Amino acid sequence: MTTLEELSAITAAARAAEHAVASASDTVRAGWLRAVADSLDAHSDELVRIADEETHLGATRLQGEVARTTGQLRLFADVITEGSYLEAVIDHAVPTATPPRPDLRRILHPIGPVAVFSASNFPFAFSVAGGDTSSALAVGCPVIVKAHSGHLKLSERTAELMLEALERAGAPKGIFALVTGREVGQALVADPVIQAVGFTGSVSGGRALFDLAVSRPDPIPFYGELGSINPVVLTASAVAARGAELATGLTASFTLGAGQFCTKPGVVFVPAGAGFEAAVAEAASGASGGKLLTDRIAEAFPAGVAAIASDPAVEVLAGEVQQEDVTAGATPVVLGTTAAAVAERPETLLEECFGPATLLVSYDSEDELLDALRVVPGSLTATIHGQPDEDLSALVAVLRGRAGRVLFDGWPTGVAVNWAQHHGGPWPATTSLFTSVGATAARRFQRPVAYQSAPASVLPEALRDENPLRIPRRVDGRIELP
Amino acid sequence: MTTLEELSAITAAARAAEHAVASASDTVRAGWLRAVADSLDAHSDELVRIADEETHLGATRLQGEVARTTGQLRLFADVITEGSYLEAVIDHAVPTATPPRPDLRRILHPIGPVAVFSASNFPFAFSVAGGDTSSALAVGCPVIVKAHSGHLKLSERTAELMLEALERAGAPKGIFALVTGREVGQALVADPVIQAVGFTGSVSGGRALFDLAVSRPDPIPFYGELGSINPVVLTASAVAARGAELATGLTASFTLGAGQFCTKPGVVFVPAGAGFEAAVAEAASGASGGKLLTDRIAEAFPAGVAAIASDPAVEVLAGEVQQEDVTAGATPVVLGTTAAAVAERPETLLEECFGPATLLVSYDSEDELLDALRVVPGSLTATIHGQPDEDLSALVAVLRGRAGRVLFDGWPTGVAVNWAQHHGGPWPATTSLFTSVGATAARRFQRPVAYQSAPASVLPEALRDENPLRIPRRVDGRIELP
Repeated sequence: MTTLEELSAITAAARAAEHAVASASDTVRAGWLRAVADSLDAHSDELVRIADEETHLGATRLQGEVARTTGQLRLFADVITEGSYLEAVIDHAVPTATPPRPDLRRILHPIGPVAVFSASNFPFAFSVAGGDTSSALAVGCPVIVKAHSGHLKLSERTAELMLEALERAGAPKGIFALVTGREVGQALVADPVIQAVGFTGSVSGGRALFDLAVSRPDPIPFYGELGSINPVVLTASAVAARGAELATGLTASFTLGAGQFCTKPGVVFVPAGAGFEAAVAEAASGASGGKLLTDRIAEAFPAGVAAIASDPAVEVLAGEVQQEDVTAGATPVVLGTTAAAVAERPETLLEECFGPATLLVSYDSEDELLDALRVVPGSLTATIHGQPDEDLSALVAVLRGRAGRVLFDGWPTGVAVNWAQHHGGPWPATTSLFTSVGATAARRFQRPVAYQSAPASVLPEALRDENPLRIPRRVDGRIELP
Repeated sequence: MTTLEELSAITAAARAAEHAVASASDTVRAGWLRAVADSLDAHSDELVRIADEETHLGATRLQGEVARTTGQLRLFADVITEGSYLEAVIDHAVPTATPPRPDLRRILHPIGPVAVFSASNFPFAFSVAGGDTSSALAVGCPVIVKAHSGHLKLSERTAELMLEALERAGAPKGIFALVTGREVGQALVADPVIQAVGFTGSVSGGRALFDLAVSRPDPIPFYGELGSINPVVLTASAVAARGAELATGLTASFTLGAGQFCTKPGVVFVPAGAGFEAAVAEAASGASGGKLLTDRIAEAFPAGVAAIASDPAVEVLAGEVQQEDVTAGATPVVLGTTAAAVAERPETLLEECFGPATLLVSYDSEDELLDALRVVPGSLTATIHGQPDEDLSALVAVLRGRAGRVLFDGWPTGVAVNWAQHHGGPWPATTSLFTSVGATAARRFQRPVAYQSAPASVLPEALRDENPLRIPRRVDGRIELP
C-alpha cells in the first residue's frame, strides 16, 4: 500500500513533469503511447497469466482485452497526430468592425495531472493502461493510477512495463505512477496537484469520490462511469420472427464475463404471452455463470438478486436466488415481472445487479412499454430488437433520452473503440457529458486557451498561420483541411 | 417574485416543450433566435432607457451592449446552421475486423431544460437574452432565466419581447420563461426537470449554487463564471518605451463600467523604479469612477479596497480608501505593493474587488515576477505588454496555466463574440472546461448519443449517409466538408 508520504512525492513528481509532458510534440507523445502498446503486446502471455489468476476471466477473453487495450493506445496515437483534437480556431483581426476585432486564436491545452481509478471488471481496458490513462497521456497530462484491489499483481506488472517503455521512449520522469490503497485514493482526489479524475466502478464508490472532487476548495472535473442497467426492448414482431435466436443471444450477453460488464443487459422488455420467458429460462439453465471477480462481488450478487426477487410481482424463471457458494461459480439467474410493476417500483426492480442475472419485463401494449421505459435509470446503452418494417421512432425518442448509445439488432456488451463511440449516459451511467471510450474521450483532459494579438513566436505551432503541423483548423469561421 | 407553485408550472411547461424544441430543425431554431434579435434591436431605445435607470451604465455603453447581444443571438443562428456543432461522426461497419465492427454514428443532442442565472453587470449580454440563453436555445434546450434583482424591470420587459418574438416565430410554448426571487433560484437548480445551469456572478453566490447542483441525487453540470483578478504584466522595456500610454490605457480599462467588468485588470505587475505608479496615479486622479450597479456592490467596494489596503505592504497611490457616499459615485482607487508581498499573502492581496480599483505590484526581477504570477488565482484573462524583440515565452508558459485568454498589447475588458473566443479559466474564474462566450459555448448544453446499426429511418438527418443537411462530418476517421 502506498503511504501518504509516498503519495506526496508521487504527486510532486507529476507536477514537476507537467510542463515537459505538455510541451512534447504530438508525434513524440504518440511514440510514447505506441511504445507502451508494443511492450504490453510483447508481454501479453505473461500478463494474461497473471490476470487470469486474479480475475478468473479466462485466457481467451483476456487475450482479446490486451489487444483491445493496445489498439486503444494506438488509436489515441493516431488521434493526436491527426490534430483535430486540439480544436484549433483562428479568427484574424477585423480592424473595421465595431468594435474592432483583435486577432484571436483558440486551442486546447492539457489540463494537468490526472488521477485514474481502475475498474475490477476490465483488468486491462479500464485499468492501468486503459482508456482513461491513454487518453490523458495522449493529450499531454501526467497520470497517477489508483490500482484496483481485485488485480494488484497485474496492476503492478503492467505499471512496471509501462514505466520501462516510457523511459526507453524518452518520456519525462513523473509522467506516470501507480498507487494502491483506498485511503490513498481519497487523498489523491483531494490533492491540489490533481486537475481531473477518471473513474470506473460502483455507484456508491464513485459517488463518494465525486463528492470529494466537487467539494475541494477548487472543484475539479470527475469523469465517472458508475452504474448502468442497459434496457433491451424486444418487439412482438421480433420475438415472433426469431424468438429462439434472441433468447440465445440475450443469454450469451447477460452471462458474458459472468455478467460483470457495465453494458450487461440488466432489464429486458418482452411482449407478454409470447413464450419468450420460457425460451430464455431454457437457454440460461444450460449456461455457465462463472467465478466472480472479487469476494465483495460474490457477496453482493446473491444479495442483489434476492432484493429484486423479494418484490411480490417478481418470479424466478431460471437459477436460484439463494446461491450458497458463489465464490466457486455463480449460476445464471433469470427473473420475471411486469411493465406495470416496473413503472410503479423502479427503485427496487431496476437496481443494477452485477453478475449473471437479468430481469424480463412483460408488456401488454406500446403505451405500457413506453411508460416503463421512461422510469429506467440513465444507462450506457439501450437496445432495440425490431423487424425491418416496424416504426421504432417512439421507442428511439424515449431511449435516446435514457442512454448514451442506442443499438439495434445486437447486444450491448461489445463496445467498439473508434471515432464514433460514445460510452456514457445520463446519471448514474456517467457523471459527465463525455465518453470514456473512443477518440472523443481525450476532450475530458483538455482546457481551452485563447491567444489574443499574440506574436507568432509565443503561439503554439498549431495556431501559426502557416499551419506547420498540417492539422484541420477553423479559420475565420470556415474549416480548413491540411 | 415567482412562487414555488408558479415555478412548478414553469418547469412542467419546459419539460412538456422539450421534445418539440429539440426536434425543430436547425433552420427553424435559427429563425427563432433571429426573431428575438430583431425584436430587441427594434426596441433598443426603450430597453436602453429602462436599463440606464436601473444600472446607471450610460446610454452609449448600453446601446453597444444591445448590439453585442443581438449579434450574439445571430452568431448562434449561424453556428447551428453551419452544423459542426453537432459533432457528427460516422464509422461504417467493418465486418472483417476482429471483433467485427458494427456501424456506429455519433451526434450531440440537446441536454434538456436549462436554468440561467443572469449577471448584474451586463444587463443584456449576460442576462435574459444573453450568451447562456442564446447558446442553450440554439442547440434545442428550453431555458428558464432567473432574473438579477439589480435590473428587474429590464429583465421583465426583455422576457416579454422574447416571448412575443418566439411565439410569432412559431416556437413551442414553454420554451422560455423568466423567474424572480432568490429562493426560487435555489429551487430551480434542485428541480429534477433542470439538466444544466449557466451562472455569471460572485464566487460566494456561484459556489452555493454549484454545491446545490452537484449534491442533487442526480448531479447536473453547473457552468459558472464566478470571479477573476485578471493579471496584467508590463515589461520594463514596454514601460520605458510607452509608459504614459500604458498608464492611460490601464486607467481606462480598470475604470470602464465603473470597474464592474469580470475582465477588469485587478492586479498589474510593473517594473520597480520606473515611475509607472506615479503615471497611473495621475491618470486615475482625473478619471471618473461612476455610480455602482447595486447597493450591495456599493457597500462591498470600499470594504474590499480597505481589506487590501490594510496590509502593511500596501500603499494608497490614488483615490481614497474610506469613501463615504459610494452610492452617488465611486472614486477610482490605485493601490501599490511588491511582488514579494503578493507571493507571501496572495489570499489577502489578490482578492477580487468589484469596482474601480486596481493593485500595482512592483517587481525587481523576472524570477520574482514569475514567483508572484504562479500564485495568482485562476482568471479569465492574463495580459502582457512587452516590446517586439522581447522573449516572452517564460511569462506565457506561466500565464496560460492561470488564465483562459492570454492577450498582448491590449486590455482585457473587451471580449469578442466569435468562433475563437474562450471566456473561462481555472477556478474560480469558471467551474468548467467550457467558454461562456463565443461559438463553442453551445457544447455546454449538449450530450452525445451514438447510434449503432440503426435503420436510416430512425437516424437523425445529420447522420444519414447522403448528408441531407450538408454539414461537416467525420466519416471513417476523415473530416468531410459539404
